[in-house]
Amino acid sequence: MNSTFEERMRESVNRPRIYFDHAATTLPRPEVIDTVATLLKESYGNPSSFYQEGHRAAELLEDARARIAACLDVHPEEIFFTSCGTESDNWAIKGTADAHRRRGRHIITTTIEHHAVLHSMEALEREGFDVTYLDVDHRGILEPEKVREALRDDTILVSVMMANNEIGTIQPIKVIGSICREAGVLLHSDGVQALGAIPVNPNELNADMMSFSGHKLYAPKGIGLLYKRKGVRIDRLIDGGAQEKRQRGGTENVTYAVALAKALEMSLADMEKESKRQTALRDRLIHGVIERIPHTKLNGHATERLPNNANFSFEFIEGESILLFLDKFGYACSSGSACTSASLDPSHVLLAIGLPAEIAHGSLRVTLGIDSTDEQINHFLIDLPLIVERLRDMSPLYSDYKRGVLPSLIPEEGSLDLEIAGGYGWSS
Amino acid sequence: MNSTFEERMRESVNRPRIYFDHAATTLPRPEVIDTVATLLKESYGNPSSFYQEGHRAAELLEDARARIAACLDVHPEEIFFTSCGTESDNWAIKGTADAHRRRGRHIITTTIEHHAVLHSMEALEREGFDVTYLDVDHRGILEPEKVREALRDDTILVSVMMANNEIGTIQPIKVIGSICREAGVLLHSDGVQALGAIPVNPNELNADMMSFSGHKLYAPKGIGLLYKRKGVRIDRLIDGGAQEKRQRGGTENVTYAVALAKALEMSLADMEKESKRQTALRDRLIHGVIERIPHTKLNGHATERLPNNANFSFEFIEGESILLFLDKFGYACSSGSACTSASLDPSHVLLAIGLPAEIAHGSLRVTLGIDSTDEQINHFLIDLPLIVERLRDMSPLYSDYKRGVLPSLIPEEGSLDLEIAGGYGWSS
Repeated sequence: MNSTFEERMRESVNRPRIYFDHAATTLPRPEVIDTVATLLKESYGNPSSFYQEGHRAAELLEDARARIAACLDVHPEEIFFTSCGTESDNWAIKGTADAHRRRGRHIITTTIEHHAVLHSMEALEREGFDVTYLDVDHRGILEPEKVREALRDDTILVSVMMANNEIGTIQPIKVIGSICREAGVLLHSDGVQALGAIPVNPNELNADMMSFSGHKLYAPKGIGLLYKRKGVRIDRLIDGGAQEKRQRGGTENVTYAVALAKALEMSLADMEKESKRQTALRDRLIHGVIERIPHTKLNGHATERLPNNANFSFEFIEGESILLFLDKFGYACSSGSACTSASLDPSHVLLAIGLPAEIAHGSLRVTLGIDSTDEQINHFLIDLPLIVERLRDMSPLYSDYKRGVLPSLIPEEGSLDLEIAGGYGWSS
Repeated sequence: MNSTFEERMRESVNRPRIYFDHAATTLPRPEVIDTVATLLKESYGNPSSFYQEGHRAAELLEDARARIAACLDVHPEEIFFTSCGTESDNWAIKGTADAHRRRGRHIITTTIEHHAVLHSMEALEREGFDVTYLDVDHRGILEPEKVREALRDDTILVSVMMANNEIGTIQPIKVIGSICREAGVLLHSDGVQALGAIPVNPNELNADMMSFSGHKLYAPKGIGLLYKRKGVRIDRLIDGGAQEKRQRGGTENVTYAVALAKALEMSLADMEKESKRQTALRDRLIHGVIERIPHTKLNGHATERLPNNANFSFEFIEGESILLFLDKFGYACSSGSACTSASLDPSHVLLAIGLPAEIAHGSLRVTLGIDSTDEQINHFLIDLPLIVERLRDMSPLYSDYKRGVLPSLIPEEGSLDLEIAGGYGWSS
């Protein structure tokens, strides 16, 4: 006989917590933590200093840069250390705008970018820049030809993320990049969610700038990267000393730079194996959830998505309530982007792929990692249906649907690729 | 009989290195390193996330903020975490300029600020702002009345550092702050070198914004602070998610925030004792150097200086050569600001206090710390005179002086407070 909701909740207390939010942040690898602890003790010199301790710090920093460059198949002088992916996005976008504003004031991006990109664009709009926000299709994919159509004589930058943080959709950056290159327009791509998960080669992608973050790939929070192709000229975001080839002031976080190099090398060494393993887990999760829970849809593309990402909408209930119950059952998941979870507005990404606000509100993101196991998926496939059922039992919307007063927007059998038009006719 | 240059250099190999460059960066305290290693393992949640691990990270972050606020006697909501002091300076200055540009485009600062401030000012000048650079006296002190005289109707910001990174001079910020407040103009003060070394209370100082850095006070590199008084409105430098009350995007470096709180609390607990101890060491060092080495002057103010800072000019020789020999003798010192030591231009601070370029070139900064000892000073007072003597023996300038062809600008008996006019009549 199957366990009940109450039994499963009680049992979960004796189980280790299950972390299914790797797109929000990751636990640093033990080898990376060891690197940090060792370097903080042994190598604390300032890389700009003119003596043994300083030279050693500078060597460590440049070695980290070279190792990261090798991972991306680029030149070390094309790698700049920053404090996070958000800083890298800000620098690439605002730095390009500042340096090229005399040539033009038009920028192209998409409606599903991270807030680091979207809010940088809004800051530029307040300064008089004109930003075109391209729509994606209902799976979250940008049609490259839309970029070509949007290009103007005064376009100075295109910024399209490589993989989406909420729905995991992977964009055809290579094609977009060749369109930009043909037009002589710079392409920036936020690669924060992609690096370490799928192959990232800025040269093959025809990207001129790419942003990356350490804590998404098992390095600590507080370190990011900007790849900037040689010859690409952008203004500084952070003025100061002569660090980072005079492009980014501030004493370098040498320890975390080395930690990031270590984490990236380890992620790439594992990538092929982990990609297969996580894709299999993910697909079992996706199919299991759709099969077991009625009125459920997958958000994003069924195959062109990150190996670790699943994103669902459950009709008639609220994502926040699912999260609360999942937390009680021992799971860490997300209802969208962690960076905006303090807000109760529905995710801009889910709205951009055409979900009505009511459906977007009932969404759940599950992102796997190197520590995710088959057994965790087994548990989840038992618990999530119980939680959704319990919430629907308490939902006036579900009761209305049962009484035939409210239509269903997601069919009972669920869908991996559903385009929803309209909504219930009201918006929450 | 006294040891020779060669004997001392040989002997130094068997001695632990002596780190005399605490103004460039510091070795994190063991307790701080333990905090980092523990938190990286145990508390890796994203503070924006909606579950147990996220809540725990958010609690740690807010606890760190509250502890830091208590150290500064301000409200926690007035403390913002950044990646470094340079970012804080950039944010305060550019953010004020962006938010208040409609009210005015005039900013006042000094000629001896850190490059994070000076280069931010230059960036604003390229955008059409008008910046007044106030001169300091030959000890590096800004006369507060100069601020009053420079104030205009369109002045929106005054930025004066609390303590100088090269010569350690402490400015009369409290008086400057009350002049600014009377005029209704915002005051920013770079407190990077001051925090942990001397009392810093933004309210008592009448400062509206202050920048701080972790790695100058025995926390790791990669974390900084901006104090911003409640009600002071500045634009964002880094747009993104809702972090830091929507004022600074990017996943928070929770681990380093807690590490900084720990380091700051420990520094303040020690401050009175360390301040006395380091002042005594510093004064023994200063007087010992001036007594033992002819044609030597102290740069900066004899008493209104940081407890750990000594800065000397040695006539007829080059600072870089002194550093090279000191390094061989086992000492880490600086010839000026570490952030610019890659450059061979003389320090802008030493030029600003009126040193001719030839004299500025022959300068040395010694900055003590919690690990500095009497015995280290004893060694230094033996070794430095030998090194300077050796370098002068090789110096054509010194030979010219000996032959009576070149005048001496610094008297043989040395000086704690010498104003030098002119120079040799040529500039290097």
